[in-house]
Amino acid sequence: MTLHDLCARIPGANAATAAAARTRLDRLTKPPGSLGALEPLIVRLAAITGQIRPEFKQPAVLVAAGDHGVVAERVSAYPQSVTGQMVLNFLRGGAAINALAANAGARVIVVDAGVAADLPDHPGLRRVSTGSGTRNLLREPAMTRTETATAIMAGARIAAAEIDAGLDLLALGEMGIGNTTAAACLTSAFTGALPELTTGRGAGLDDTRLEHKRTIVAAAIRRARPKAADPLGTLAELGGFEIAALVGAALAAAARRVPVVLDGYTTTSAALAAVALAPNLRHSLIAAHRSAEPGHRVALEYLGLQPLLTLDMRLGEGSGAALALPIILGAARLMRDMATFEQAGVDDKVTR
Amino acid sequence: MTLHDLCARIPGANAATAAAARTRLDRLTKPPGSLGALEPLIVRLAAITGQIRPEFKQPAVLVAAGDHGVVAERVSAYPQSVTGQMVLNFLRGGAAINALAANAGARVIVVDAGVAADLPDHPGLRRVSTGSGTRNLLREPAMTRTETATAIMAGARIAAAEIDAGLDLLALGEMGIGNTTAAACLTSAFTGALPELTTGRGAGLDDTRLEHKRTIVAAAIRRARPKAADPLGTLAELGGFEIAALVGAALAAAARRVPVVLDGYTTTSAALAAVALAPNLRHSLIAAHRSAEPGHRVALEYLGLQPLLTLDMRLGEGSGAALALPIILGAARLMRDMATFEQAGVDDKVTR
Repeated sequence: MTLHDLCARIPGANAATAAAARTRLDRLTKPPGSLGALEPLIVRLAAITGQIRPEFKQPAVLVAAGDHGVVAERVSAYPQSVTGQMVLNFLRGGAAINALAANAGARVIVVDAGVAADLPDHPGLRRVSTGSGTRNLLREPAMTRTETATAIMAGARIAAAEIDAGLDLLALGEMGIGNTTAAACLTSAFTGALPELTTGRGAGLDDTRLEHKRTIVAAAIRRARPKAADPLGTLAELGGFEIAALVGAALAAAARRVPVVLDGYTTTSAALAAVALAPNLRHSLIAAHRSAEPGHRVALEYLGLQPLLTLDMRLGEGSGAALALPIILGAARLMRDMATFEQAGVDDKVTR
Repeated sequence: MTLHDLCARIPGANAATAAAARTRLDRLTKPPGSLGALEPLIVRLAAITGQIRPEFKQPAVLVAAGDHGVVAERVSAYPQSVTGQMVLNFLRGGAAINALAANAGARVIVVDAGVAADLPDHPGLRRVSTGSGTRNLLREPAMTRTETATAIMAGARIAAAEIDAGLDLLALGEMGIGNTTAAACLTSAFTGALPELTTGRGAGLDDTRLEHKRTIVAAAIRRARPKAADPLGTLAELGGFEIAALVGAALAAAARRVPVVLDGYTTTSAALAAVALAPNLRHSLIAAHRSAEPGHRVALEYLGLQPLLTLDMRLGEGSGAALALPIILGAARLMRDMATFEQAGVDDKVTR
């Protein structure tokens, strides 16, 4: 399948199922609207899956890792070696995402989409043959168009195979030292927001280095001259291998009516690229949380997404998405398990 | 045991364990502070339990139900019959709390603390012999002091027995048509906030009836003249049987170093009363969410609690607490499962 074919397969929201879910929701034994933000979430799950009472039995977090040539510009508080070391940590089960995914009853799928380090073979590691880290996006395109499309389709294939094997709720996660710089570039490119609004501290820059990172982001955008009509070119210029793989995973999930749960800034920047490629994808997205990165708010607002959690997390890995999975599972369970007023013999509102 | 003895047993925060937890947290494989609000939560769990890496194997939601004489003043959108009907719904597993507790792996403990309806025997129903609903708090004390102390100690006994049997994380829930009126009275009484700030729409009042409810709350407070030095008297004047039972459950849990997870406005008004009786209790509380009831914010701020969720829920039953349980369980799991930088062989920050 080509990327073009994949994008053409993304369905819109299922409005009829959404309306039926809304009707049922108001007959459940609770005051109308009293479940707050869970109610639009329940309706959204129906619109995505085409089921009024969906059941998610196999949630998983797909964590894509990749390195970034732009680290040469000293945009990160941590050395590049950490990307590969954290992949090993994921595989051994010692990272935050392992704890939070297990807590949610979700598997972790670890994808090496382009890590600079030589990683040993491991049964849990999916390798995507793309590249050993991107080029420096300040100086030249981070990836070629072909590399980018290859990484997208590789991510799509991994997600599609998982869905064929039962995965029914896909959370996105990532690891890549330097990737909030790419996320800032992509967010500015796709939303038009200034680098002042899209550049943040990442894993922990101080004021001076934050200012430096902003100048790098601004200069990269001036160099790349992203065009709205060419999202693949923008992703190639300013993205990363793990981001491209996540774009593909999101597209493959949406094509199969599997909800896509975004994590923080980097996964949301992948969603911006994916929505630019296939606008219908927007309907399949659920924003797990709003991170402490200021640009994340910009990206979520552009996508029209309300985050479920606002806990000032800024760890990545899919940690915020994994933390929100039980809320999503709980919302689905409310629709499956709750009785209606009629079933329960509960009197309805006096003043109706 | 007397109420006085119970209050005297509430320990303070364990500062040494909290400090040790903070130290460990900064050695885990993540940028310092990157878990956001989960980090103070993790420290709080350590301070409450006295364990750096607590494990919660038996979370439960204790849902206390009671009726309120003040419904004669037309303060609720639903008829009083709904309280008992919803208790039956809880026992049959058809309510929101059943779905959300099951989603969190938590049991639901249903307590009839003073429901006006005659409820049939059911193996899952704990009965507390207090009264069949309170008197009308607008006209006279809702309960006598003796009734109030009896309901508190009954709630404490139920919680203590559950903890002896393994319960290690206690979420509070409630059901009682009219009880947001009591919650508003208690919140004004204990915090000094005006009824304009503490009275909300409950299960769904329109503007006119909201205004009416405010005048009832204001008049009840004028009648009762609550005194800061007499929290038991205030609870008797303006509270309810289910609220008193929750006060006792919270005190019993805190006395045994079991974290107490608050739900919405009514459970938080119980916490206000409990903290007035035993100020140390404050250290054992975790605010699950901030509900859509405006007075809930007033009560949480008075208690110095940051809610984990802000999803505009206003259902009660313990639904918000149950939804937050996986976050609390996830926070505890992070401390148990995550590797340190040393263990994982991950390089630390360059700029440290």
